[in-house]
Amino acid sequence: MLHRLQANTCTRSVFSFTLLFMLLVASPARAQDVGLVEKKTFTLAAYTTVGGQAINNVRLGYETYGKLNARGDNAVFIAHFYSGTSHAAGKYKESDVAPGYWNPIIGPGKAIDTDKYFVVSADTFANLNSKDPNVITTGPASVDPATGKPFGLSFPVVAMRDSVRVHKALLDSLGVKKLAAVAGASGGSVQAMEWAALYPDFVARVIHVIGPGFDIHPYVVGLLDVWVTPIRLDPRWNNGDYYGKEEPVDGVAQALKIVTLTARHWGWAEKSFGYKPADEKKDPAAAVANQFQIESVLNSAGMARAKTTDANHMIYMSKANQLYRLSDAEVKGIKAKILFVPASSDVIFPPELSKRALERFRAQGGSADLFVIEGDGGHLDGVFAIAKAGDAIKRFIESD
Amino acid sequence: MLHRLQANTCTRSVFSFTLLFMLLVASPARAQDVGLVEKKTFTLAAYTTVGGQAINNVRLGYETYGKLNARGDNAVFIAHFYSGTSHAAGKYKESDVAPGYWNPIIGPGKAIDTDKYFVVSADTFANLNSKDPNVITTGPASVDPATGKPFGLSFPVVAMRDSVRVHKALLDSLGVKKLAAVAGASGGSVQAMEWAALYPDFVARVIHVIGPGFDIHPYVVGLLDVWVTPIRLDPRWNNGDYYGKEEPVDGVAQALKIVTLTARHWGWAEKSFGYKPADEKKDPAAAVANQFQIESVLNSAGMARAKTTDANHMIYMSKANQLYRLSDAEVKGIKAKILFVPASSDVIFPPELSKRALERFRAQGGSADLFVIEGDGGHLDGVFAIAKAGDAIKRFIESD
Repeated sequence: MLHRLQANTCTRSVFSFTLLFMLLVASPARAQDVGLVEKKTFTLAAYTTVGGQAINNVRLGYETYGKLNARGDNAVFIAHFYSGTSHAAGKYKESDVAPGYWNPIIGPGKAIDTDKYFVVSADTFANLNSKDPNVITTGPASVDPATGKPFGLSFPVVAMRDSVRVHKALLDSLGVKKLAAVAGASGGSVQAMEWAALYPDFVARVIHVIGPGFDIHPYVVGLLDVWVTPIRLDPRWNNGDYYGKEEPVDGVAQALKIVTLTARHWGWAEKSFGYKPADEKKDPAAAVANQFQIESVLNSAGMARAKTTDANHMIYMSKANQLYRLSDAEVKGIKAKILFVPASSDVIFPPELSKRALERFRAQGGSADLFVIEGDGGHLDGVFAIAKAGDAIKRFIESD
Repeated sequence: MLHRLQANTCTRSVFSFTLLFMLLVASPARAQDVGLVEKKTFTLAAYTTVGGQAINNVRLGYETYGKLNARGDNAVFIAHFYSGTSHAAGKYKESDVAPGYWNPIIGPGKAIDTDKYFVVSADTFANLNSKDPNVITTGPASVDPATGKPFGLSFPVVAMRDSVRVHKALLDSLGVKKLAAVAGASGGSVQAMEWAALYPDFVARVIHVIGPGFDIHPYVVGLLDVWVTPIRLDPRWNNGDYYGKEEPVDGVAQALKIVTLTARHWGWAEKSFGYKPADEKKDPAAAVANQFQIESVLNSAGMARAKTTDANHMIYMSKANQLYRLSDAEVKGIKAKILFVPASSDVIFPPELSKRALERFRAQGGSADLFVIEGDGGHLDGVFAIAKAGDAIKRFIESD
């Protein structure tokens, strides 16, 4: 999620952080990148949620890399994570500071080889970044055609499954007949598994990166609520009714701060910040308001990202992830092969959850494999250190 | 910290939680308990903080179990954790729902044997539970003698070290000449190590339970800030100026919710809640406001505990823990033997931190040992599963 930071930096501390970030995690765009990409819009005049509620005029953004073959069976779908977008690879223009978040594994000759595969990524319902001009989403901030005003909390609950169903309609419209693979990190891994459960004959392989397995864990149900707690406390949230008024930017900024910290880990904190004051002239021991660098940088980064984040969308995205739970019958119906790719230092979806799911899937006769991303960056190693899993993903996706 | 819940339960969900809690973690008071205990008050007319600021009329509560010997060298000090109090063992009255939090290891014949040792526990500066009638503390909610009004944010920053220095004055006043041991969990482990650094000839042994080692980790500096984030967002917090007005109870309740979730772990969530709605008639998939049980119980528990918690005290307690960092010279000066007692599933101070500190201490010629509390309850296993470390603690405290 930190990859979104570059576009909004302004303060010195965020600038330092950006530098740190670039040094630590960003891969420079290379010759074999997918090059310039374009955001497109998929529309559905009407959609009925899994909960039975109607949403008219659905619009979701998407990007494609590579070309669909004549049989329509060389497609790979990339589902995005909680605070992510469909910008999985490439750049919109040469001057972009960073390419899409999985650029190290998507491109010509890379793990997900765009010389061989037609790669599609799409924005979900209630994507957090609804004010980012490169994100197209439908959610509480969208205008309700019935009233001409934003839905707010009258927007129906959407599960991750709802996004997957619309994305299926998108792939149908593009002529895709079969997915060679569906891949995603974290909330994207949830969607990837939903794909395999909903469309068992359409999906050949699932690449489940830093994921929960076949259901969300009760602990993470609580954590997803903690993430959006600051929004509910911001009086400008006003029970979701803030459109056209002052928005709950502070609550959103603090919510994003909590997401970042819990999605990271000790190694990241040590390497990026150490035990330093935010300002050498303001000793944290001298006044309650004097901060350490890690506090100040996370606050600034949260505030920068809050400018393009919708508060209600974040609450809906937490709900969508909380609702992920495949039934026994759905798990049994999965025909795809599964590659589980947990990160060793992940404290949201620790490797243990992938191992449990792998054993369950093998016990029912399914084909599954495991590759652990070793590192000390926490959950987000599944985004920023994905290159470590490149070879394993390439072998898996090109296997029979 | 959950042990404080019993006194405040009222809703059905919290009641269920209390039952769960009793089943899972509470030890029934046994025949060999320390029996009824009494809260006393230690006062200091004037104290100057390590930061050089004066606090007049310091009052801190304390409890004692067992008897001091003639040489004054059989004392054990118990330092409390972040949201804890000096109620380490026993009951105030027979009808109390639960005894003090470390009752399983403090009492006649227990690991910390009150037939042999004189055990003292004291409240810190800015104890969170300042509205609990059994807690006596001095902090932002205390009346500033100079103005006749609560200090609020004009109260000086206090480090954990400040509490330790006042507790030393308390022990001096009681005639204690030497500590056979100083023990504490989490924030208490921080104080225990401060004791050994500040008074190397006074402290024979340190029992450092679920602790950070010799300094607070940058990741936890961030986490301590996350814990109090909801308070700052509650408009009733009003930059710390809320005394005599409506208090920021919502912010405090949500802050305590985050503390509990981050101090726990997957096993606790699975066993205590599973994946159940808070109300069987309100499907979490049907409306954004419909909660899961883990959300509802943590909200209710937070709200119950918020009634006796002061918002500013919580902010000051986070700061006090952020400031923990012994200098190299201080670590080198420690003469005590150290027992590190991490919990295997702790994601705040994982066992790795204890192992690092142990190696550092042994490398300088110090005597140190390690006992890991195995379990899946997270950080709080150092409180609720302390009985597992009983034998190791007994051997350590009675060793030469």
